Amino acid sequence: MQLYLIRHGIATEAEADTNDTERTLTEKGRQKTRQVAKQLRDKELHFDLILTSPLIRARETATILKEIGLSSQIEEFTSLSPDGDIHTWINWLEEWRKNTTIKGYLALVGHQPDLGNWAETLVWGETKGKLVLKKAGIIGLTLPETGNPVGESQLFLLTSPKWFL
Amino acid sequence: MQLYLIRHGIATEAEADTNDTERTLTEKGRQKTRQVAKQLRDKELHFDLILTSPLIRARETATILKEIGLSSQIEEFTSLSPDGDIHTWINWLEEWRKNTTIKGYLALVGHQPDLGNWAETLVWGETKGKLVLKKAGIIGLTLPETGNPVGESQLFLLTSPKWFL
Repeated sequence: MQLYLIRHGIATEAEADTNDTERTLTEKGRQKTRQVAKQLRDKELHFDLILTSPLIRARETATILKEIGLSSQIEEFTSLSPDGDIHTWINWLEEWRKNTTIKGYLALVGHQPDLGNWAETLVWGETKGKLVLKKAGIIGLTLPETGNPVGESQLFLLTSPKWFL
Repeated sequence: MQLYLIRHGIATEAEADTNDTERTLTEKGRQKTRQVAKQLRDKELHFDLILTSPLIRARETATILKEIGLSSQIEEFTSLSPDGDIHTWINWLEEWRKNTTIKGYLALVGHQPDLGNWAETLVWGETKGKLVLKKAGIIGLTLPETGNPVGESQLFLLTSPKWFL
């Protein structure tokens, strides 16, 4: 199966009186995310499901992906919040694969450095913080069809919007 | 500095009576390589130097990159042949950095699985064969400005022409 890790678009700056979870995408962030989503759609990509961090800037990003037609389904997933644990997601994946017949294309929308770290864990089995993932950037992985994907996945895509648009 | 590893374009099939070193790009290979090169040029990328494997399909790819305007300089580098040793190149890099004032953007044109393995060595310090690099595909790395780049580099781009064009 293919797994796409998508970082949220450009969001408003953190401010002392704003809760980090409440930061929203800027107009430029929305626009660039929309362009990236359209490009993915033009490559005939379609996700069976988008799992998103519950933080607003991630949910807004996931909603844009859905609106552009990349998926009809979004679910919030708590472990996609900053510092979330990949192993919670790996357990979820095992259950999802058991309980769904469609399991080819999955997207996760979340944050850095977590998404880069998750990708490293899936591909190399450990985290070294060496993947650069810009806002609205994308990582594409091929996971083995069965079994634990940690250290068993392949990396076929890593790009920022700059290269992609 | 930024290092771009570029795999040669689609080449003629290996045949019993043809030397592997003599395989040339197909018309489709030329065309796709040209499209990729134009995209890179449109992103205002310019290489101080292109080092290429001496095999014909790689030299043809490097020549297209040059013709499109991505660099004015091509040099053949024996260790970019299949199964070439990265350490020869790392020694070369050290000398190049000493002897040139321009050392910001370097491209290597070569073969798989070598380029993927070289990237893994630069980023993670070891080779696990986990990077998928299609023909005319590109890997982009940021190397530290000084010192040995093995295990000290960052990956910011990995893409096949499919995503890029």
